[in-house]
Amino acid sequence: MLLRMSTLFVRTLREDPADAEIPSHRLLVRAGYIRRAASGGYTWLPLGYRVFRNVERIVREEMDRMGAQEVHFPSLLPREPYETSGRWSDYGDNLFRLKDRRGVDHLLAPTHEEMFTLLVKDLYSSYKDLPLWIYQIQTKFRDEARPRAGLLRLREFVMKDSYSFDISDAGLDASYAAHRAAYIATFDRLGLDYVIVSAMSGAMGGSRSEEFLHPNEVGEDSFVRSAGEYAANVEAVRTPVPDPVPYDDAPPAHVEDTPETPTIDTLVALANERFSRGDRPWSAGDTLKNVLVMLAHPDGTREPLAIGLPGDREVDAKRLQAQVDPATVQPFTEADFTANPALVKGYIGPAALGEKSPSGIRYLVDPRVVEGTRWLTGANETGRHVFDLVCGRDFTPDGTIEAAEIKSGDQAPDGSGPLELARGIEIGHIFQLGRKYAEALDLQVLDENGKLVTVTMGSYGIGVSRAVAAIAESTHDQAGLCWPRGVAPADIHVVAATGKDPAVFEVAQRLAQELVDGGLAVLYDDRRKISPGVKFTDAELIGVPTIVTVGRGLAQGVVEVRDRRSDQRTDVPVVGAAASIHQAIPG
Amino acid sequence: MLLRMSTLFVRTLREDPADAEIPSHRLLVRAGYIRRAASGGYTWLPLGYRVFRNVERIVREEMDRMGAQEVHFPSLLPREPYETSGRWSDYGDNLFRLKDRRGVDHLLAPTHEEMFTLLVKDLYSSYKDLPLWIYQIQTKFRDEARPRAGLLRLREFVMKDSYSFDISDAGLDASYAAHRAAYIATFDRLGLDYVIVSAMSGAMGGSRSEEFLHPNEVGEDSFVRSAGEYAANVEAVRTPVPDPVPYDDAPPAHVEDTPETPTIDTLVALANERFSRGDRPWSAGDTLKNVLVMLAHPDGTREPLAIGLPGDREVDAKRLQAQVDPATVQPFTEADFTANPALVKGYIGPAALGEKSPSGIRYLVDPRVVEGTRWLTGANETGRHVFDLVCGRDFTPDGTIEAAEIKSGDQAPDGSGPLELARGIEIGHIFQLGRKYAEALDLQVLDENGKLVTVTMGSYGIGVSRAVAAIAESTHDQAGLCWPRGVAPADIHVVAATGKDPAVFEVAQRLAQELVDGGLAVLYDDRRKISPGVKFTDAELIGVPTIVTVGRGLAQGVVEVRDRRSDQRTDVPVVGAAASIHQAIPG
Repeated sequence: MLLRMSTLFVRTLREDPADAEIPSHRLLVRAGYIRRAASGGYTWLPLGYRVFRNVERIVREEMDRMGAQEVHFPSLLPREPYETSGRWSDYGDNLFRLKDRRGVDHLLAPTHEEMFTLLVKDLYSSYKDLPLWIYQIQTKFRDEARPRAGLLRLREFVMKDSYSFDISDAGLDASYAAHRAAYIATFDRLGLDYVIVSAMSGAMGGSRSEEFLHPNEVGEDSFVRSAGEYAANVEAVRTPVPDPVPYDDAPPAHVEDTPETPTIDTLVALANERFSRGDRPWSAGDTLKNVLVMLAHPDGTREPLAIGLPGDREVDAKRLQAQVDPATVQPFTEADFTANPALVKGYIGPAALGEKSPSGIRYLVDPRVVEGTRWLTGANETGRHVFDLVCGRDFTPDGTIEAAEIKSGDQAPDGSGPLELARGIEIGHIFQLGRKYAEALDLQVLDENGKLVTVTMGSYGIGVSRAVAAIAESTHDQAGLCWPRGVAPADIHVVAATGKDPAVFEVAQRLAQELVDGGLAVLYDDRRKISPGVKFTDAELIGVPTIVTVGRGLAQGVVEVRDRRSDQRTDVPVVGAAASIHQAIPG
Repeated sequence: MLLRMSTLFVRTLREDPADAEIPSHRLLVRAGYIRRAASGGYTWLPLGYRVFRNVERIVREEMDRMGAQEVHFPSLLPREPYETSGRWSDYGDNLFRLKDRRGVDHLLAPTHEEMFTLLVKDLYSSYKDLPLWIYQIQTKFRDEARPRAGLLRLREFVMKDSYSFDISDAGLDASYAAHRAAYIATFDRLGLDYVIVSAMSGAMGGSRSEEFLHPNEVGEDSFVRSAGEYAANVEAVRTPVPDPVPYDDAPPAHVEDTPETPTIDTLVALANERFSRGDRPWSAGDTLKNVLVMLAHPDGTREPLAIGLPGDREVDAKRLQAQVDPATVQPFTEADFTANPALVKGYIGPAALGEKSPSGIRYLVDPRVVEGTRWLTGANETGRHVFDLVCGRDFTPDGTIEAAEIKSGDQAPDGSGPLELARGIEIGHIFQLGRKYAEALDLQVLDENGKLVTVTMGSYGIGVSRAVAAIAESTHDQAGLCWPRGVAPADIHVVAATGKDPAVFEVAQRLAQELVDGGLAVLYDDRRKISPGVKFTDAELIGVPTIVTVGRGLAQGVVEVRDRRSDQRTDVPVVGAAASIHQAIPG
């Protein structure tokens, strides 16, 4: 394939687009790979689509290699199956819903668990047909609240989604392991670093779940890892639960005047000033902060929730959201306070909380708030707090919740040491769905004894368009994009380093054609009246892995072969250049 | 690629699906290529998706070969560009519209003229950048009133749509010709017969337009052709206009009692009985029938329209619709008659019609109703008709309209002889859009004199999923599908013609693997406990072009190679079978 810069549908830009916050977005637009077409919707230009199709091909080849079979579903689907699974409402505002000309409800599928389940139910009926692994590479739609960062978070994107069907839990484990191995092979081929982290399964339902995160500061996912191999999405981190504390000799709780202490800082300062303790100063960790939120359930009802956590930690919005899913977390407003007169803002304490309390508000606490722990917390009166309030003696929460932020240095739940916090781009996600969808949609097969059993499923996704962004993000440099071989839009970028010298164009053209004849994809900068400097800048921006310059060296009978990444340059005799360049390309 | 029937995700059916009216639909479902997923939405199963991807590959290769460049747009688009072009409303009920979470109007794109225009405007600014040919292969959405016939008329389908951009009309002609040639090459490679017919451009706007129709009785498009090379979509046929007729010696018009003659047949019978003419009997062609319809315009207004045509022809709904597009034709109801008291149902005549008449209803006549023609028609009184009403003397219509049905034997407008009527499947469509979209969206470039000129465009489509149906439709036989090589899901179908003999499975397996190693795609029926008869029936149904049977012949050291289409069978020595089979495959 020979692409000529003179006719290629591309415009490189010298300036960063105004809305681009991250390098992949900036560079993919500047190098003419993508253009914004809609909120959360990008058009692939020819160079971009070549990269996209390379990534798609690698994903497909690895799925085929593992023995998965490719199918393809429509995107526009009727409401019924999603109603049956509950996702029609559980997906909330993230689902694009529409009516057809007859007023029938449809959706644009965010993923296809329901449809795959129904298809297998339609075709298969026996344990002999299982395990089955089927996949598609398909356009998905999600009405993201905040589409952002170019290809990282789109409303319309391409995903490879596969599904496994097994008759037993052991079978599901094997199917899950096979996908995990295929994902490792895929991301290795794509040249993408990844960390496999434990994850929550969210709206998908199901049990075991891991994410493949590409560690990168522009990523939207926070994860933790320990020196000892523990790794988890922040949402999935389980707090190590301390042992109960003996409290036989604890003093009784006592309420004190603490005027003008509506915040933890003011409270700690006043406590140290007026109620100093013998052993050490009061700290935020001694206080019990009670945070109120409102849960909006998919059925439209709203429910207040109180979260009690040590005052040295904030509520982590994403961790909380993951816990309450499919409800969504909304702020607790002034109107909500007015409607709940038992709550004294700034001085809320456990006595006013709990399903059996005057407020009746469900009260969940951080797992660190175990029996016997003593807290300084609100007394439910303006300007007053209660000291030495002992959990299990003076108050009993309705349960615990994993909603507190994770801090660097927190201990890993498996005892493998302190946690380090990092950010990553989610490039893959594997789920053990279990029997949730098969039960909802009644997918059963006959086992070897002729008995009907419910099938157990897994669901596995790779963000294909997002992987393009992740690769760009992890490989670019100051000068521009810098694609790994196999993903790049071309193997070789031949630059005719002249604006007008016909001899240079002639040699460059011949060389480009010879490389193409040898089976390589070549981008040839054949533009007239464009200076070598501009051509070099464009070549660096576009990021094809090998740049061959035909120019001044011709007088000495050489062309320059340059590695885009290392910038290593070698002069190669122009006679036989195509063969030696081809030979020097790895793979 | 080795596909094993034992694990392939497929179920062949012995019974036709209840909703399948045409062979391709019936057989694609029965052979396990597709399954219905929604109204007008089908899921591709593994065999079907392999055929789809083969067709897609051929289409892509021919587009690349002609020098078109591949891009890819989102499907979910904002309303604005389609509002600007007028298509947001012109598309009527056929457009899927939806709102996002912020209430912003979006659509699912039926085609992408607007977006391509805006993209070129975004990137290009000079005549030097043109001509430009860009294309995508992409999922399209249309809210069809009657999705039908399996893959023939879907609400979600895959189309290759390309667009040309030129600075001059001559340039557009060249771009159009290049696409026409590429389409010919594409359909030739796909093994699809086609007729290139003149067409209307409909909602697309623009001037010259041709359709590639695959002649087939299950097709939805009617077309005509003459022995002398004329071919046109029925909507596009122009009626040869007769010369005016002298009427100096015509008798004056006279109204007669014609009781109980509300239909043409009753009127002709009565005229022959009571008002016989000297030269010949009255016939339906002597009467002028006036048909009323209501036009619903995209802006919501309704407009009555009267169509006058010789009584031996009916109004052709599709021809009429093509003429009034983007308005849609609706019936003229009893309520409409009540609202227009000047109209006497069954006896409507020209005197009551026309913009200047008492009714004020626009009155368009068939082109055959030329000046001087004499008509027997309604007198606008119940039970009365007018004789010898001369066009141009006694009435003057508001204009003409091409709404009358075409009859076999009508003369071609180019004088190339009588027309033959046929049906076809639209597999491709090429349009000269001209400057409609460029003007609406302000796509201008600088010409060689530095002057801004509006770009002229073409738009060119191939229905990729529909082509799969058309190929199935044109190649199947009684026993099942019968794919052309290059499109088939596999090159060879190896049948182990036994349910249990291990020696047969061993040889078949080795042969299948050798064929795969030689670069062929092989479907291997390795099923145990399935009889040879069932396997043969499945092989015929699935329709791979070459069927290799490993079975009884083994005793004589041969396997049977059978051509699926001709049923020609050859015994080939089992030693070296892979090589000789490979050699025998054309291409």
